[in-house]
Amino acid sequence: MSDSVARLDDVTVTVETRLLEVLAQRRARSRRFSAPYMQLWDSLERMARGGKKIRPRLLMDAYRALGGTDDRVALDAACAIELLHIALVIHDDVIDKDVMRRGEMNISGQFASEAMLRGTTRRDAHAWGEASSLLAGDLMLTLAHSLLARLEIPDEQRQSVLDIFDATVFESAAGEHYDVWLSLHLEPANPQDVLAMVDQKTAAYSFQAPLVLAAVLAGAPTSVIEELAVIARQIGVIYQLRDDVLGLFGDERDTGKSVLSDLREGKETLLIAYARSDPAWSEVEPLFGTEALSIADGHRLRRVIEESGALMFVESLITERCESVSQLIQEASLPAALREQLTDVTAACNLRSS
Amino acid sequence: MSDSVARLDDVTVTVETRLLEVLAQRRARSRRFSAPYMQLWDSLERMARGGKKIRPRLLMDAYRALGGTDDRVALDAACAIELLHIALVIHDDVIDKDVMRRGEMNISGQFASEAMLRGTTRRDAHAWGEASSLLAGDLMLTLAHSLLARLEIPDEQRQSVLDIFDATVFESAAGEHYDVWLSLHLEPANPQDVLAMVDQKTAAYSFQAPLVLAAVLAGAPTSVIEELAVIARQIGVIYQLRDDVLGLFGDERDTGKSVLSDLREGKETLLIAYARSDPAWSEVEPLFGTEALSIADGHRLRRVIEESGALMFVESLITERCESVSQLIQEASLPAALREQLTDVTAACNLRSS
Repeated sequence: MSDSVARLDDVTVTVETRLLEVLAQRRARSRRFSAPYMQLWDSLERMARGGKKIRPRLLMDAYRALGGTDDRVALDAACAIELLHIALVIHDDVIDKDVMRRGEMNISGQFASEAMLRGTTRRDAHAWGEASSLLAGDLMLTLAHSLLARLEIPDEQRQSVLDIFDATVFESAAGEHYDVWLSLHLEPANPQDVLAMVDQKTAAYSFQAPLVLAAVLAGAPTSVIEELAVIARQIGVIYQLRDDVLGLFGDERDTGKSVLSDLREGKETLLIAYARSDPAWSEVEPLFGTEALSIADGHRLRRVIEESGALMFVESLITERCESVSQLIQEASLPAALREQLTDVTAACNLRSS
Repeated sequence: MSDSVARLDDVTVTVETRLLEVLAQRRARSRRFSAPYMQLWDSLERMARGGKKIRPRLLMDAYRALGGTDDRVALDAACAIELLHIALVIHDDVIDKDVMRRGEMNISGQFASEAMLRGTTRRDAHAWGEASSLLAGDLMLTLAHSLLARLEIPDEQRQSVLDIFDATVFESAAGEHYDVWLSLHLEPANPQDVLAMVDQKTAAYSFQAPLVLAAVLAGAPTSVIEELAVIARQIGVIYQLRDDVLGLFGDERDTGKSVLSDLREGKETLLIAYARSDPAWSEVEPLFGTEALSIADGHRLRRVIEESGALMFVESLITERCESVSQLIQEASLPAALREQLTDVTAACNLRSS
């Protein structure tokens, strides 16, 4: 286990080094433009530092386990996935009008607060923060595409890699769009809809893309690619369900996020979709999605959700999914090292506290 | 001349056909996702129809004039440039919080108004419209990258094409970011700053990228590529200066845009940068950038700008630039057909009314 941790850390460092190398080129080039543009690249560099690098690690480890030997190629694909993740996170914050992420100011927050200190109105400052984030996301998305398009691999393989990446962006956007749609509450969201959204929004890019790209780059047979795709989606849903539980019932010191923020946002999670069927929900429903939600009302909402059985329902669904994915992993025709890795990842997705 | 017009129209049709073909694949795939996502692709298809297709036409015509013979390759590069244009326009509207474009509702406007009709609050509807536009822009940017990465050209040429496209996105984002920064008015913008911004924001992707890509794809020598880059930037600035004049002094029936909108937005154009040096400006300055600007106050602002000499200054700058670019075109070692085309394009940028 300590061996495996050391190996994972090693990959994290390698990925971060390459990522910073790619960003440094652009950062240097930004010096020819405006001072705020240079600052934008500084912020992007800070975002690329640290973080768990779950997705690149998944890709690199799977690539090696599947017998891939060109680490340079896998590394750039891994960086592309991380850049896509950064782009999606930045644009997700714009969509949610968030100025904080994991307890720190995000790009919108940094740029808005600096402009306010320099004397702009609150409104202008927010518009400036949002514009900066929107462009930052575009730049990260461009960088992701750029790395993949330049992979030195045979033409046929490149076509597959590009197809996978396109389909991933397409599906993540579909999931994000559906997420915002559901939070408008124009039509009742049933648990199936929420699960489909979660699957599109997170599982596709966070788990399926890294594993499938690894398999394609390692030259794995189609059967392996298909097995990995199915397993990845299941793990992705577990990851997201745990995320939703942590968002409402997690320890704020671990998650770096207020347990009120999803409630204030009116985020349509599986917990909410389930709680809606409880008669007690109608009493607290007006509180859900109100920006000025008080701590006391937040507690009230969380109590109703818990007492509706939603928490138990989601926890048992997570357990059920963990069992079914374990079985899939054991039955799959994968190398032992990869089976072990996937088992570890599943457990980590379930047991994490942040 | 009628021959040249017919040829241009022909290219417009070819580009649109290919663009719709590319979009149709994605639109079909969106059927597997939510109904709003399908609508988003319908809206994108509508955006791709019509329009002057200035950029793709520029690329295609230059490619042929430079002796390029693989129309299929040029066509996909031309479509990539048009997709980048669509992406930038959509994200520009998000940044400016615009819901109209050329007299019609844009994606934000369409999605917001439909949500409002279905009963959401104005605030939620706007957030939904913006989220839809933001994702639509990401999808168009992805599609542009995707087309270029798949061009069937030699590796070395592909590297050049990717480099040019990356640098173009990088510079357009720099220009857009600087544009928003200048409109905060935290530091006085001098005419040089505004010209640099305009050059980055518009000339790079609208003129330089199409011409330089055409030259690289046609296998033109480096000297030609360099000459075209310089000419393109000059034409781009003429185009944008004319745009700014039309925005304030154009015929609204032609431009499809209120002459008040740039003033309400506080858009920092060369006209404004010049007018600022006039003592009369200080009296009307508080009106500039106010969202509720009345028609009467708009006329007052425009009169001060005109009487400051700004309009005359910009018009004479346009004339001067037209003359200098004409000279560059005549002296350049370009095929006669391309020289003629560039002369036509320069005239069209200067003389257009919409």
